[in-house]
Amino acid sequence: MSSSAAATPFGDAVLARSDQLARHSDVADVDVPSGAARPLTVTWLTEAHRACAADLRQWMRDDGFDEAGIDAVGNVVGVYRGTDPAAPRLLTGSHYDTVRDAGRYDGRLGIFVPMACVRELHRQRRRLPFDLEVVGFAEEEGQRFPATFIGSGALVGQFDPAWLALTDADGVSVREAMHVAGHDPADVAALARDASRYRGFIEVHIEQGPVLSSAGVPLGIVTAINGSVRFVGEMTGVACHAGTTPMGQRHDAATGVAELALYVERRAARVPLLVGTVGQMHVPDGSINVVPGRCRFSLDLRAPGDAARDALVADVLAELAAIAGRRGLRYTLKETMRASAAPSDAGLQKRWERAVAATGVPLFHLPSGAGHDAMKLHEAMPQAMLFMRGLNAGISHNPLEAISAGDAQLAVEAFLHFLVQLAEEPSP
Amino acid sequence: MSSSAAATPFGDAVLARSDQLARHSDVADVDVPSGAARPLTVTWLTEAHRACAADLRQWMRDDGFDEAGIDAVGNVVGVYRGTDPAAPRLLTGSHYDTVRDAGRYDGRLGIFVPMACVRELHRQRRRLPFDLEVVGFAEEEGQRFPATFIGSGALVGQFDPAWLALTDADGVSVREAMHVAGHDPADVAALARDASRYRGFIEVHIEQGPVLSSAGVPLGIVTAINGSVRFVGEMTGVACHAGTTPMGQRHDAATGVAELALYVERRAARVPLLVGTVGQMHVPDGSINVVPGRCRFSLDLRAPGDAARDALVADVLAELAAIAGRRGLRYTLKETMRASAAPSDAGLQKRWERAVAATGVPLFHLPSGAGHDAMKLHEAMPQAMLFMRGLNAGISHNPLEAISAGDAQLAVEAFLHFLVQLAEEPSP
Repeated sequence: MSSSAAATPFGDAVLARSDQLARHSDVADVDVPSGAARPLTVTWLTEAHRACAADLRQWMRDDGFDEAGIDAVGNVVGVYRGTDPAAPRLLTGSHYDTVRDAGRYDGRLGIFVPMACVRELHRQRRRLPFDLEVVGFAEEEGQRFPATFIGSGALVGQFDPAWLALTDADGVSVREAMHVAGHDPADVAALARDASRYRGFIEVHIEQGPVLSSAGVPLGIVTAINGSVRFVGEMTGVACHAGTTPMGQRHDAATGVAELALYVERRAARVPLLVGTVGQMHVPDGSINVVPGRCRFSLDLRAPGDAARDALVADVLAELAAIAGRRGLRYTLKETMRASAAPSDAGLQKRWERAVAATGVPLFHLPSGAGHDAMKLHEAMPQAMLFMRGLNAGISHNPLEAISAGDAQLAVEAFLHFLVQLAEEPSP
Repeated sequence: MSSSAAATPFGDAVLARSDQLARHSDVADVDVPSGAARPLTVTWLTEAHRACAADLRQWMRDDGFDEAGIDAVGNVVGVYRGTDPAAPRLLTGSHYDTVRDAGRYDGRLGIFVPMACVRELHRQRRRLPFDLEVVGFAEEEGQRFPATFIGSGALVGQFDPAWLALTDADGVSVREAMHVAGHDPADVAALARDASRYRGFIEVHIEQGPVLSSAGVPLGIVTAINGSVRFVGEMTGVACHAGTTPMGQRHDAATGVAELALYVERRAARVPLLVGTVGQMHVPDGSINVVPGRCRFSLDLRAPGDAARDALVADVLAELAAIAGRRGLRYTLKETMRASAAPSDAGLQKRWERAVAATGVPLFHLPSGAGHDAMKLHEAMPQAMLFMRGLNAGISHNPLEAISAGDAQLAVEAFLHFLVQLAEEPSP
């Protein structure tokens, strides 16, 4: 090539694999208007999902994995054997299911990057001293059934038998879907990994946010997966005539929620890395000329550590009570989700830092605001993630999700550095 | 009676008439669950509405009116003749249609109070020097068809022929409804009054707000009917992940609207008698974990004078633009209604003050936040209203709307004082 740009063979391969896997979608061609792009939607155990699994297994075999199989929840598991079968393994991977009308890198990048490494190691006929186990997790997004992290959950011994009765929008149960895909629920328990056999879990993931993009940095060291708490609530005041009720005699539920939303915004902004969101705000049956008697709202509060998260939650709840007291309002509040923060393992994070530094990319640290498979594995073993920059200001869960071949090249190079450096350390 | 409480024969009569008229409702007995109260709903030209008109006309005859008839839009018009047929008439009245599931005093009180006066004058065989014309307006609430003030509008020459094609929820047109009721649209134009033949319009109305109730005063002198402007709008920012988007990189449409709602509240509260309301506030398809990209809202801004109203509107719109600018948001805004303030005529208001003072009630002034028939008559002649206290903190448009017999007694007495004092003045 006459171009002065560096060649990006690893990055090109990752993009090509992402495009190839995106051929499979739950949305049939016949359902797409002529001229429109076919939406990418791959949910757990559909036909498109099973086609993805078959492709991944085949590509692992092509790349030189010694083992490649599909487990009882649909995870695609490849092993590139090391020289010492007794050495603790390194586990990595991410999910290949998608949200509806998804981008093609969310999750899948974390499968293709280590696969590119194995392909390169195999090309060099190089063996690591430890087994490298790469997992394409079958389910993370919770799109088809009201359950999430089914893939990574199975590896930490979490598969709730009650899930078997859950049904999708067409009334198909988990039990039926597993049967059609050739899986036996009785085999799931055996998927749980013995953590003592692992050095830990690492995961590469597209950032799904604008931080790396706006900082102009291709890779980011994840310091923690944020802890989060979610609530839904309703403020109740007194509905009354917007013309005849003086300002001083109102109990306006909507301005109460407005005050809360602005407090959440201010309080979260006061501490770096905290985020707080009122994503739902709604006056039911609101009329132009009626002072709102009710206003529904939600709260999503996250922080890189549980202490910071809990302090944020405590302040927001105290302010909610104070607002209601000042304004003569009542409220209900229901916690719908609580996840502990998953700080990155210091040792694994340090290895990511050395690996990224070796590629010449400046070190940039950030927490993960979203949940990832690593959050599930965190319950069993040390983990640390590497983020890759998303283009288009980091848009995700959207067909506009994009990465550059150059960034993907750097991610593969960093992953290779991680493996090589770990290989040079004495076994623990 | 052995009670020491003053007798309230006029007030009792007003309450009894209100109860009697409330027997008629568009809601049939068979549609009401056993044991439940039958909702009071009387909309323009329904069977119940025509029954109300027939009752009102009969009661006017019983009370001693010299003329009592039903005009071409369903207004019930009674005249108690004065001694000088050439003297300008005094016009009064209010509406007898209701909202759905209404209280029994909204509008109707302004018919029954002057009727009680005529009954008393007739009992005393007393004639005023001028004709007193009492109108039960057929339509003010805009419940059946998307048109309002059809009754009082007809008296000021406003009947839009385009209304004839409007249809109700059952597909019945105004034209058909008028035909069924025996009215000919061709006769409506002749209902317009020659303002030079009138001294003005006065109207008694329940306050429909909490001001008199919380002040502990039975009657209130209305200084103006508030001018108002209404808008609906939508704020647009960028929908993004609530976990991964740092606070400093957000363009949250909902917190933008929250800031606007709190500004409206503060700005209106800063000036006595102003009111401002965000009655609709809604994040469409809001998700707990998505920063709102859109938020719909409404604005209802009112003031006793157009200058104060316009200053309020200008400040709110400037703040909206400033909020959008600071937060990187865009917005649309559509004005849906604009009504000029209707200040009370100084002469008529002064007569109300003297009349109320004569009853021993302390003078209390307030603007009307809601629109009334007097607002329509204001376009043709001087007007001034008298408010009566609503119990239950002034709740209205609700079956809990209530008044006391004592307050109604005072309203009739004040009205009689108004008439007698006006009779003693030289004819203009």
